[in-house]
Amino acid sequence: MDKIIICPDSFKGSMDSTTVCSIIEKKAKQYFKEAEIVTLPIADGGEGTVDVLLTSVGGEKIYGSCSGPNFEKIKTYYASLNNKTAVIELASCSGLTLVKGTKDPLLTTTYGVGELILDAAKKGFKEIIVALGGSATNDGGAGAASAVGIKFLNKDRKSFVPTGKTLIDVKAIDFSNKSPLLDGIKITTMCDVANPLLGENGASKVYSPQKGATAEMVELLEKGMNSYSKVVESSLQKEFKEIKGVGAAGGMGFGMVSFFNSTLEKGIDVVLDAYDFENHLKGASLVITGEGKFDHQSLEGKAVMGISRRAKKANVKVIAIVGDIGPNIEDSYQQGLSAIFSINRVAKDFEKVVHRSKEDLELTVDNLFRFLKELA
Amino acid sequence: MDKIIICPDSFKGSMDSTTVCSIIEKKAKQYFKEAEIVTLPIADGGEGTVDVLLTSVGGEKIYGSCSGPNFEKIKTYYASLNNKTAVIELASCSGLTLVKGTKDPLLTTTYGVGELILDAAKKGFKEIIVALGGSATNDGGAGAASAVGIKFLNKDRKSFVPTGKTLIDVKAIDFSNKSPLLDGIKITTMCDVANPLLGENGASKVYSPQKGATAEMVELLEKGMNSYSKVVESSLQKEFKEIKGVGAAGGMGFGMVSFFNSTLEKGIDVVLDAYDFENHLKGASLVITGEGKFDHQSLEGKAVMGISRRAKKANVKVIAIVGDIGPNIEDSYQQGLSAIFSINRVAKDFEKVVHRSKEDLELTVDNLFRFLKELA
Repeated sequence: MDKIIICPDSFKGSMDSTTVCSIIEKKAKQYFKEAEIVTLPIADGGEGTVDVLLTSVGGEKIYGSCSGPNFEKIKTYYASLNNKTAVIELASCSGLTLVKGTKDPLLTTTYGVGELILDAAKKGFKEIIVALGGSATNDGGAGAASAVGIKFLNKDRKSFVPTGKTLIDVKAIDFSNKSPLLDGIKITTMCDVANPLLGENGASKVYSPQKGATAEMVELLEKGMNSYSKVVESSLQKEFKEIKGVGAAGGMGFGMVSFFNSTLEKGIDVVLDAYDFENHLKGASLVITGEGKFDHQSLEGKAVMGISRRAKKANVKVIAIVGDIGPNIEDSYQQGLSAIFSINRVAKDFEKVVHRSKEDLELTVDNLFRFLKELA
Repeated sequence: MDKIIICPDSFKGSMDSTTVCSIIEKKAKQYFKEAEIVTLPIADGGEGTVDVLLTSVGGEKIYGSCSGPNFEKIKTYYASLNNKTAVIELASCSGLTLVKGTKDPLLTTTYGVGELILDAAKKGFKEIIVALGGSATNDGGAGAASAVGIKFLNKDRKSFVPTGKTLIDVKAIDFSNKSPLLDGIKITTMCDVANPLLGENGASKVYSPQKGATAEMVELLEKGMNSYSKVVESSLQKEFKEIKGVGAAGGMGFGMVSFFNSTLEKGIDVVLDAYDFENHLKGASLVITGEGKFDHQSLEGKAVMGISRRAKKANVKVIAIVGDIGPNIEDSYQQGLSAIFSINRVAKDFEKVVHRSKEDLELTVDNLFRFLKELA
């Protein structure tokens, strides 16, 4: 073992990726004293993404204020990675955890995200990453667009900032005041869902209930989003609403593509690019990754598979240490995963064992290293 | 990998040791095509011990009839291993699964075990192994002793065959008619519990309830066993009742030691001796063992640890693949176990996943071999 790269995602509901990383790192140092150990905890675009990236890539926090999910003024921050790339978490300004009192996706806004994007542009960043996880909103990105000068007009040609409830009132869009600061800036959106904007699998029907929508509200939101998206698409003379992922974060995916000329990319790929992962892979003997649940969804491109595919190209072996291993995962071996192990050590329900996840992870890692060390 | 020895115990409640063996064997052949694969499924002294030993060691079944747990005539068999050693399962003549109707340990007998021992002696076997698991009895071995000619006398000096209920009536013992066929025969008893004969941890209080005893019956059995053991010990002028394991099989451990001059040995050691395990270890690269639950009890001497200790002496590495891994198992590494892995792949209760134990075992073994093969 010359060099080991440790790059797990979080184990949702039990351990964040930094914790998982440090447990594996401790054991790697114990068994492979001579090896170079590189730790790259994976962020997945949800809350904590900025902090994880800052720790691993280096950079600083840029503090400021912006509008919260209900237009209240809040203090927040985004990341400057090596003075080169700004990373903004939607969760830090329009997140569900910021909502005080009743959750109501008819009223919440992504306005703050637009403010932070504009702030980063003003500060001269030429690359901006927006992480979409954890939103409280269902405004199709109209709030964020408004913050950068795009005007949404009602039937009386009066400008307003639409929210879920008033998307239905958008009759025309005026792009003439959109800030020129955004020109030439590359904006990348981290997005790990594939939902379209509308319909049964769309933003409103799938995600708004967890943001506080009743069945009646879901119908209103869907209707508004449908009407709004038609206006946006006819204004821009392009179709966006079927692109995979535009339904993310209450249609913020749609807004990022439509108004910010952003691409929607898998969180893992954005993070690995930010980490310059291919460079780390040079000379590596082993990559150890992991996530809370490895299943069919993982094969679609979450952390373990995203990492495996890149490591395979560099001819580096990958093992995954995970919480649960779902069915039918054999395909993953062809895609670069050498082997996968679960940290479950007893046949008991998750609620009964979650309190000792760290201990169980440590035992599993310890035994894998023992196995390798003693038998290799 | 030149030679791999596969020697798992059963996974209680899900897979017998032969099944576990064949799943691991299949995968070993797939990944290590050149290696010599030796399979030695482990029997633990319970039901199936004779069959497992016959399959692995070779030999024949000796069919005959004897008394069942309620003195009824039954057909049964014991094993002749290579015409050298007879192996008798208590479960095959005095077992709980043979009881028809109401289970009542006041009335059941080990008489059949004595008959089979005598039959083996008549046939010329000089070594007899008796496996104690699965008994329906609580007669302190008085039935088995009666079958070989030992006479238990009541207050009127009248001979009778005591059962749990009538142990209290034993006032004297007459050894003069004990069959001389037993002289010079080495009898070994497989016994995996450490219970003394009497008291809170004794045969009656710990085990008789699972054989059908009510609280009231337990008291009667304990009282009878106490009185009976005093008569036995004063007759033989020796103390047996505190020896570890004499409480096994309703005091049959006590009977084997007292009347058959038997030693009580750990099942795993008896089986490994029968397998000539040290001979198999020569030239082995790896031993793979396992059992349903590996815990503190395992360290006391069940399959995995019994195998690890012997393999350590021969300097062969051992890994264990198990159902559950209990707490505080780190001591086992010093005793020869290289690494241990659980087949649990999801955090779900046993009842929900037991149906797919074979599949989960196969996945675990497959990944361990992949890991070894790709990284070694």
